[in-house]
Amino acid sequence: MPQSNKQKAEIFRELHHRREVLLLPNAWDAASARLLETLGFPAVATTSAGCANVLGYSDGQRITRDEMLEAVRRIAQAVNVPVTADMEAGYASTAEEMYATAQALVQTGAVGLNLEDGTHDEQLTTIERQVEKISAIRQAATDLEVPLVINARTDAYWLNLYPPAEALVETIRRANAYREAGADCIFIPGLRNLGDIEAFLPVSPGPLNILCGPGSPSVKELQNAGVRRISLGSGPFRAALGVLREIAQELCESGTYEVIQRYGIPYKEVNEWFERNEDSNSGKSH
Amino acid sequence: MPQSNKQKAEIFRELHHRREVLLLPNAWDAASARLLETLGFPAVATTSAGCANVLGYSDGQRITRDEMLEAVRRIAQAVNVPVTADMEAGYASTAEEMYATAQALVQTGAVGLNLEDGTHDEQLTTIERQVEKISAIRQAATDLEVPLVINARTDAYWLNLYPPAEALVETIRRANAYREAGADCIFIPGLRNLGDIEAFLPVSPGPLNILCGPGSPSVKELQNAGVRRISLGSGPFRAALGVLREIAQELCESGTYEVIQRYGIPYKEVNEWFERNEDSNSGKSH
Repeated sequence: MPQSNKQKAEIFRELHHRREVLLLPNAWDAASARLLETLGFPAVATTSAGCANVLGYSDGQRITRDEMLEAVRRIAQAVNVPVTADMEAGYASTAEEMYATAQALVQTGAVGLNLEDGTHDEQLTTIERQVEKISAIRQAATDLEVPLVINARTDAYWLNLYPPAEALVETIRRANAYREAGADCIFIPGLRNLGDIEAFLPVSPGPLNILCGPGSPSVKELQNAGVRRISLGSGPFRAALGVLREIAQELCESGTYEVIQRYGIPYKEVNEWFERNEDSNSGKSH
Repeated sequence: MPQSNKQKAEIFRELHHRREVLLLPNAWDAASARLLETLGFPAVATTSAGCANVLGYSDGQRITRDEMLEAVRRIAQAVNVPVTADMEAGYASTAEEMYATAQALVQTGAVGLNLEDGTHDEQLTTIERQVEKISAIRQAATDLEVPLVINARTDAYWLNLYPPAEALVETIRRANAYREAGADCIFIPGLRNLGDIEAFLPVSPGPLNILCGPGSPSVKELQNAGVRRISLGSGPFRAALGVLREIAQELCESGTYEVIQRYGIPYKEVNEWFERNEDSNSGKSH
């Protein structure tokens, strides 16, 4: 029997409390999401940059709220595992707008979201405003009976607004306020130093999400430091584009097809990932 | 001054008559299309498999006509170069339906299309029906004053319906009928043997599109044989997914990020591909 979204949210929350760190190599469309599910990942996270770029927008809330929700819906409908959506700053300035976005997000089938406190002009929104927004999400989740997993992102490191020691202090202040307001996990992109991570966790206990990529500590090092969730942001998406670049350049330069040979998943295999969905939707017209 | 779609169609048609073969490593979304444009490709072709898979459908007209048109519209709006769309069998059984699809395709901004004669149950549609459909596209193109470039695909080889010699005869019969009906180029996926290509061209003169991938003759060999257009189908898309698979497996197995390091295009560079569009669309809300 299919799980309800309420069950999926509960399962996804629980994945933040296992001994093994939760690994989320981010998806940007239904195909990348479905691939991750076939590989056995217990949940799928989206990348806002990838979701925006594939629709022709640059990252940073250039995409409309409805277009992002539609992208998330496609992904959530393509897989059975829990989906958490990178919803940037919620496409919302006020608590009321945030409540509406969270309600609409529940309708897509997603059971979690990232909400960031960085603003368009690369500042941090006030703690008070961000706490209101997190509280509004928690309220919407309660009202709709889907206990959304809130991954509260705080951008003091990411935006390079402070010297390192001050960044850590500001991050702790915000993390604790966000946890108090109902965040399930704190996401600190730009925090890569194991010493800072080990300094952070005792004063802001609870799940911590670190953004990883080239130059980051290994999964094992982060897990040993107490990190509970690792995501890759738009890194996988940008690498997928990089492979297309190599394929295209090889075609022009040597006129051969070796990169496709090296990486291509067979046509039949990819198609079969989606036949399940079509069978289960056979009563719908599409 | 931006080119009109009429001009783009004329430019795209002319690209089939140069000494250098037209290379089209296919795109599946706005990001892959925009990458190919930044690399200097003079036109972008879509892959129906990629466009369908990223929306959660398997290939083979499972996606609706309107969803495919919307995918094409996104791609055509993301680039300035001519876009040709893989429109499968036109989401149309009759000439009237085909006329409607061609009209709608012109509205997306695309200036060319692939139309295949293979059917859902892996047979070939009758020549008469396919000729009616090609004529309907040509009529719609004339009525809308956008001279769509018709790439008529014939699937005798692709579907393995005949022994090789018969496949060649059936393909020639169809190619000549389709050219007569208004096709600008003949697309023969599954035709990979240089001898067969050299046998085909004298009896069906005009632009020929070959689908390439691992095992195909090189670009130079095909160009020397007289091929005018080379495309890669869903190969690049499936290789991009293959890289995500490697990234995900590396994350689980060694807990490192080397494949991202190897292929990742910088975040800033990818984002900048889309800023141009947003500037030029600054009067629109999105």
